[in-house]
Amino acid sequence: MIRISVDAMGGDYGPDITIAGAAIAQKKIPNIHQIFYGIAEVVEPVLKKYPELAAVSTFVPTETYTRMDEKPSQALRNGRGKSSMWYAVEAVKNGEADACVSAGNTGALMAMSYFCLRMMAEAERPGIAGVWPTLRGESIVLDIGASIGASADHLVDLAVMGAGMYRALYHTQCPTIGLLNVGVEEVKGLDEVKQAGLMLREVHLEGLEYKGFVEGNDIGNGTVDVVVTEGFSGNIALKAAEGTARQMAKILRDAMKKSIFSRLGYIFSRGAFRQLKQKMDPGRVNGGVLLGLNGVVIKSHGGTDADGFASAIRVGYEMVNNRLLETIAHDLRDFHQKKPVLLKQENNTALNI
Amino acid sequence: MIRISVDAMGGDYGPDITIAGAAIAQKKIPNIHQIFYGIAEVVEPVLKKYPELAAVSTFVPTETYTRMDEKPSQALRNGRGKSSMWYAVEAVKNGEADACVSAGNTGALMAMSYFCLRMMAEAERPGIAGVWPTLRGESIVLDIGASIGASADHLVDLAVMGAGMYRALYHTQCPTIGLLNVGVEEVKGLDEVKQAGLMLREVHLEGLEYKGFVEGNDIGNGTVDVVVTEGFSGNIALKAAEGTARQMAKILRDAMKKSIFSRLGYIFSRGAFRQLKQKMDPGRVNGGVLLGLNGVVIKSHGGTDADGFASAIRVGYEMVNNRLLETIAHDLRDFHQKKPVLLKQENNTALNI
Repeated sequence: MIRISVDAMGGDYGPDITIAGAAIAQKKIPNIHQIFYGIAEVVEPVLKKYPELAAVSTFVPTETYTRMDEKPSQALRNGRGKSSMWYAVEAVKNGEADACVSAGNTGALMAMSYFCLRMMAEAERPGIAGVWPTLRGESIVLDIGASIGASADHLVDLAVMGAGMYRALYHTQCPTIGLLNVGVEEVKGLDEVKQAGLMLREVHLEGLEYKGFVEGNDIGNGTVDVVVTEGFSGNIALKAAEGTARQMAKILRDAMKKSIFSRLGYIFSRGAFRQLKQKMDPGRVNGGVLLGLNGVVIKSHGGTDADGFASAIRVGYEMVNNRLLETIAHDLRDFHQKKPVLLKQENNTALNI
Repeated sequence: MIRISVDAMGGDYGPDITIAGAAIAQKKIPNIHQIFYGIAEVVEPVLKKYPELAAVSTFVPTETYTRMDEKPSQALRNGRGKSSMWYAVEAVKNGEADACVSAGNTGALMAMSYFCLRMMAEAERPGIAGVWPTLRGESIVLDIGASIGASADHLVDLAVMGAGMYRALYHTQCPTIGLLNVGVEEVKGLDEVKQAGLMLREVHLEGLEYKGFVEGNDIGNGTVDVVVTEGFSGNIALKAAEGTARQMAKILRDAMKKSIFSRLGYIFSRGAFRQLKQKMDPGRVNGGVLLGLNGVVIKSHGGTDADGFASAIRVGYEMVNNRLLETIAHDLRDFHQKKPVLLKQENNTALNI
């Protein structure tokens, strides 16, 4: 039995989506026990609509909840020991839950998780990994915004953590890894990225296959399973891609409405549009994973639907079921043990670390 | 009469596209004189097909040309004083041309332009500005890869140069400017970005209206006229967006072929797809502008068609006709003169510059 703590108040629609999503997840993954945290007057009426779910889960009333627009420091101040998000995270710390899922405020969730769960001994800084729909299926991109800037070491840590998450989610033995970089040869990227590439090439890490640098367009092509970058460019890439997808959808939708012919065309080709929507839908595998912490915390999109929230719960389940934390801790130790060998070989000059 | 030097060998298809594009441009903008540089045996046969263009333009044979896969340093070594790209750039330096247009290797064009034309006194580092199709029309995004990382000063320089280019291209008096940043409140972006924001807010520059931070999805929405970022994240954002657009187009195309219904749907809604293609087509306003140099250099997409190349020539024409260089030099001087006032006001503490 895997126990999931759910911030029932999180997201743009609160329990209407989170509880509905939890009900879907409960049917698909019967061996989970879900613990819901939230304001009693808000959550209980919704939970009553799902008697099967209510029968096998626990509800814990909380005093308050974390607003979507609170700053992380505010949220921590206002929510500590009080809000549904805080309790959901703390349940993981206290061993009452194996994973926490929230569709709430990302910054607040990050801050509470960091504050409450602390970094695992092997990782220096956290990362957020997102699942990106590609032409080849799905890739994992990280960091998409947990921190800004990254040393070569942190980039390799991200590669190791991303590979562990990919293995847990897709059951691939040795996912391929690419470092996000720019295409101009001479100035081939940041020093940190070059150094991280050198390390990934020289230190043979089990459980991942380093493929070299990739560029922005490789993400959507699915050139590699895991794309590694620091949080600033990762966040910008993610949002630029999401923006482009919405932009194209809007242009097409508007154009389709313009003439009777194109309206007719839309009717005939609805199946094709459904496929597009399904393939590009970030909710299909909805669930950013907070990595590097002593606990599994899943961030669902705030605007997700019930299916998307169920998917985030499934991601949490997979991470626990496939022992993500142990894997990552083991692999990070492996990297940090092997690294000094490289430094010695390179006579301390090639790598400025 | 505005004189444009054209690297006729540049791009994926060489003169077949560049000369065809030049012919289109010559018809649309009669008061230009084009000078073509390239291998005689390759360019002359194509030029013969456009007798009207040949009659009003000049062809200068060159010994060699710069390959698309040469590294910038190689290209400079191999091409200096020899290649069509070199000659096209040098023509601007020598005052034989007012602007140079090439669809060749970006890194090589950047290196040759930097080496040959040098930075203008007012600018410290170069930038490449691209035109981005948005829901509102077009925006300019810079830097998309001329250099990596940027100080607060350089970001403001980019804002000033981007605003100048926007005014020259779209004849808007006071374009809006946004600094690309990430959404997490607490760690609201790089220090340099925050400082640049402070400067843009405090120093009242004529000819631009600073709107604050924007995120990746704001680019496609057209939230501001000019989006400013350093070259690493700019390049990644651009390529991530281009990748997403191609990915969606491919998924839709494949899905449309799958059933007889969707094929029929495609036929009916062809007009809508044409609109999408036209609106998202980077070739519609094709022409990255190299900024900060003592000369106007336009980089066309390598894989552009003749219309796209003609559009790059038009961009070069507009930049010269609207005195881009004088404008930028004036505005940069203005910023650098006003900046010390801010430093004094802020008692040298708020800005770490």
